[in-house]
Amino acid sequence: MALQSILRKTIHEGDLQVRLPGGSVLELGDGTGPPVTVAITSRRWALRIAVDPALAVGEAYMEGGLVLERGSLHDFVDLIGRNAKHRPLKRAGPLARWWLDRRLQANARAAARRNVAHHYDLSVDLYRRFLDPDLQYSCAYFPAPGVSLEAAQLAKKRHLAAKLLLRPDQRVLDIGCGWGGLALTLAQEAGVQVDGVTLSTEQLATARERAEAAGVGDRARFSLTDYRDVAGPYDRIVSVGMFEHVGRPNFQAYFDQVARLLKDDGVAVIHSIGRAEGPAFTQPWIAKYIFPGGYIPALSETLAAVERSGLIVADVEILRLHYAETLRGWRERFEANRAEIAAMYDERFCRMWAFYLSISEIAFRYRGHMVFQLQLAKRVDAVPLTRDYIGEAEAWFSRRGGRRRAA
Amino acid sequence: MALQSILRKTIHEGDLQVRLPGGSVLELGDGTGPPVTVAITSRRWALRIAVDPALAVGEAYMEGGLVLERGSLHDFVDLIGRNAKHRPLKRAGPLARWWLDRRLQANARAAARRNVAHHYDLSVDLYRRFLDPDLQYSCAYFPAPGVSLEAAQLAKKRHLAAKLLLRPDQRVLDIGCGWGGLALTLAQEAGVQVDGVTLSTEQLATARERAEAAGVGDRARFSLTDYRDVAGPYDRIVSVGMFEHVGRPNFQAYFDQVARLLKDDGVAVIHSIGRAEGPAFTQPWIAKYIFPGGYIPALSETLAAVERSGLIVADVEILRLHYAETLRGWRERFEANRAEIAAMYDERFCRMWAFYLSISEIAFRYRGHMVFQLQLAKRVDAVPLTRDYIGEAEAWFSRRGGRRRAA
Repeated sequence: MALQSILRKTIHEGDLQVRLPGGSVLELGDGTGPPVTVAITSRRWALRIAVDPALAVGEAYMEGGLVLERGSLHDFVDLIGRNAKHRPLKRAGPLARWWLDRRLQANARAAARRNVAHHYDLSVDLYRRFLDPDLQYSCAYFPAPGVSLEAAQLAKKRHLAAKLLLRPDQRVLDIGCGWGGLALTLAQEAGVQVDGVTLSTEQLATARERAEAAGVGDRARFSLTDYRDVAGPYDRIVSVGMFEHVGRPNFQAYFDQVARLLKDDGVAVIHSIGRAEGPAFTQPWIAKYIFPGGYIPALSETLAAVERSGLIVADVEILRLHYAETLRGWRERFEANRAEIAAMYDERFCRMWAFYLSISEIAFRYRGHMVFQLQLAKRVDAVPLTRDYIGEAEAWFSRRGGRRRAA
Repeated sequence: MALQSILRKTIHEGDLQVRLPGGSVLELGDGTGPPVTVAITSRRWALRIAVDPALAVGEAYMEGGLVLERGSLHDFVDLIGRNAKHRPLKRAGPLARWWLDRRLQANARAAARRNVAHHYDLSVDLYRRFLDPDLQYSCAYFPAPGVSLEAAQLAKKRHLAAKLLLRPDQRVLDIGCGWGGLALTLAQEAGVQVDGVTLSTEQLATARERAEAAGVGDRARFSLTDYRDVAGPYDRIVSVGMFEHVGRPNFQAYFDQVARLLKDDGVAVIHSIGRAEGPAFTQPWIAKYIFPGGYIPALSETLAAVERSGLIVADVEILRLHYAETLRGWRERFEANRAEIAAMYDERFCRMWAFYLSISEIAFRYRGHMVFQLQLAKRVDAVPLTRDYIGEAEAWFSRRGGRRRAA
C-alpha cells in the first residue's frame, strides 16, 4: 500500500513500528532512540496519511485514527522530526506567495479578531496549566542551560527591556500584550507608562485585573485595539509573539504603523518566530487547528518591509534553541496537568494541544524555526555604538530585583 | 539658471555661498555650521551639475570645475549630506534591479580581477598613508567613543575572532584577505591555520611578506584565488569588506559557495557595508571612479540569498556610526599626508580620494549606510545559546594580548 512505501522512503532514523490496518507491522528506522509503536486504525486513515501527511497525521492522532501503543507522543513526533531533518525545507515560489497573499493571509480587522479569538480567548485557566505563573506565552531566554522556565521568562522580559533602552516615564506601546505580564514588568521594573493592546477579550480582562492587583493600574493600561488603529506617538514600541499573526500582505502596514507611531528618537523591539529557509507555507495542521491566519515569516521578507518603512535596523538577535527549550517546559507542565485540562475541555482537545506543543518543539530543533528580535529605530544614534549596554542593563535589573526581594 | 533653482530647492541647512560662472553669488542655507564658499568655474560645469549632480559634483571637484574658496571639502560634503538627510532614500524598483543584474554587476572572473585591480592594486604605500599600521581597510569597532583607530581596528579583529568561536588548529578561510592583517592576527592570537584569498597582486605580495616577517608563514598562507575557485572544507570562514564587490547577480553563488566550503559544525562571519533603504543603485560617481562593479547590498536581499543557500543565520550585528568614525580617521590621516600622496600620484588623484573618503563618511552619518556582520552556521547548536560568549572571548584576547606585551 501507498503508506508503506512512503514510510520506508522517509523513516531512516529511530526505532519505529507501525501496525497497519490489516494487522501487519512495519519495522522502520535504524534502532536508535526510544522505541515507538503506533497503530493506524483504519484503511481510511492510512490513505489520508499517505495522501497528505502534513495535515492528516495530526488529525489522525486527534481523532483516534493513529494510536500510540508504545512510547510517548513526543517520542513519536521527535522521531518524525529527526527523519525530516535531512529533507530540504520547502520554500514557497512566487506563485505560492501570491496565493498566500490573496487568499490565506488577509487578516482584515474582523478576520484578525476571529483568528485571535480562536486561540487566545480560550480560558486563561488553560494557559495557567502549562505556562509559567506570569503567563509568558512566547519564547523564553535561557541565560544558561538548565535555568528554570520562570527564570528564563523573567530573563526574556529583562532582555527586551534592556534593548528598549527604557527611561522612567517614557510612553511604551506593547502590541499584542497577552495577559499583561510584560507590560506589568516594564511598568514595575523600569517605571515606564505602558499601553498594551490585544484583540482577545479574555486577555484584556486578565491583564486589567493583574494591573489593578499589582497596584500599577495607572501605569499599565490595556485596551482591545487593532494595531492599525493605535494613535501615537510612543517613545518605545515592543511587540512579542504577535508578528506571527500579521500575515504577509500586512507586513508593510505593520512596519509603516510602527514607523508612524514611533517618535524620532524612539526604539522598537519586535520579537517573532521566524523560519530559516525563506518564505514558506504555514504547516497546514497548525493553520487549520491552532493558528488560523498565522504566518511564520522569513527574515528576508520581514526586513524588506522594514526597509520600505524607513525604519533602521539597529540589531537582529536570533534565538535558536530557546523556543525548543521553552516548548519542552510547556509540554511537561501540560502533561503534568493533563487530567485537569481534560476535565475543562476533553481528551480530543488534550491530544490536539499535546500534538501542537510537540510539533512546535521539533520545528525549532530540526526544521529551521527560530526567534528573531529586531531592534528598530529612526535615527542612527538612537542606540549606543556597541551592544555592551544590553548585558549592563540586564545586570542592573537583576541587582535591583534582588534588592527588592531582599527588602 | 537651472542650477540656481535646484540649489534653492535642496539646500536648507548650513551656510553655503555658491559663486556662479557669471560672477553672481548665491546665499543658501540657514546660517548654521561652518561657512562654505564654492565657485563653479564655467557654465558647462554648472549645467553638468544641474543635470546629474550625483556624478558631476565629484567630477567637477576633481577637474577644477568646482573650487573651494572658504571652508574645507569635508565641510562642503557634510553640508550637502545634512541637507540630503531629509530626502527619502531612493530604492531601486524591479526594472532597475533587473538592469543592475544584467549590465552592471556581472563580475565574471576576469571582470572581477579588473575591478579589484582598479582599486586594490594601487600601491600599498598609498594605503599606508591613511590606514592604521595593520592596514585594516574596513570598518573598525569602537568599544567606546574616543578610542584610537588602531585600537578600534584591533577590537574589530577580536570581535570577529570572538564570533568565529575559534579553537587552535582549525582551518580558517579568509575571503578577500586584503594585506593579510586579519589572517595574521587570527593565526597569532587564536593559533588557527588561515588561508587568505585575494584578487589583488599587490595585496598578495604584501600579505606574504608580512606573514614571513611575523614568523607565521606556515600558519597564514595567501593566494590569488577567486572565491568561486576555493576548495574546502573549512571549520571557519571569514569575509570582511569583500561582499560589497560580489554584485547582486552573484549573491546566491557567494553564499552557496560559503555553504559548500563550510564543515557541518562550521561557523562563518560575513562583514559588509549595507544600506538601510533596501536595494538601490550604487552612487554613480563611486561606481565610475572608485569601486567599479561594487554594489552595497540591503539586508533583505542578502538574507534572501542566505536563506536559499541552506545556511542558518545565527546573529546579525549592525554597526551604524562605526564606519563614519573610521572614515573620519582615514580622512584626517589622508589630509596629514597629502603632500606625500600628491608626490606619488597627483593633485587630481588627491582630490578624487578626498572626495571619496568624505562622501563615504556622510553616507554613514546621514544616508542610511551601515555595516552588518552576519554570523552563519549549518547547525542550530554550532553557536552558544546566548551572545554572552562574544564579550567573554574579547576579554580573553585582551588579557592575553596584555600579557604578551608585558612579557
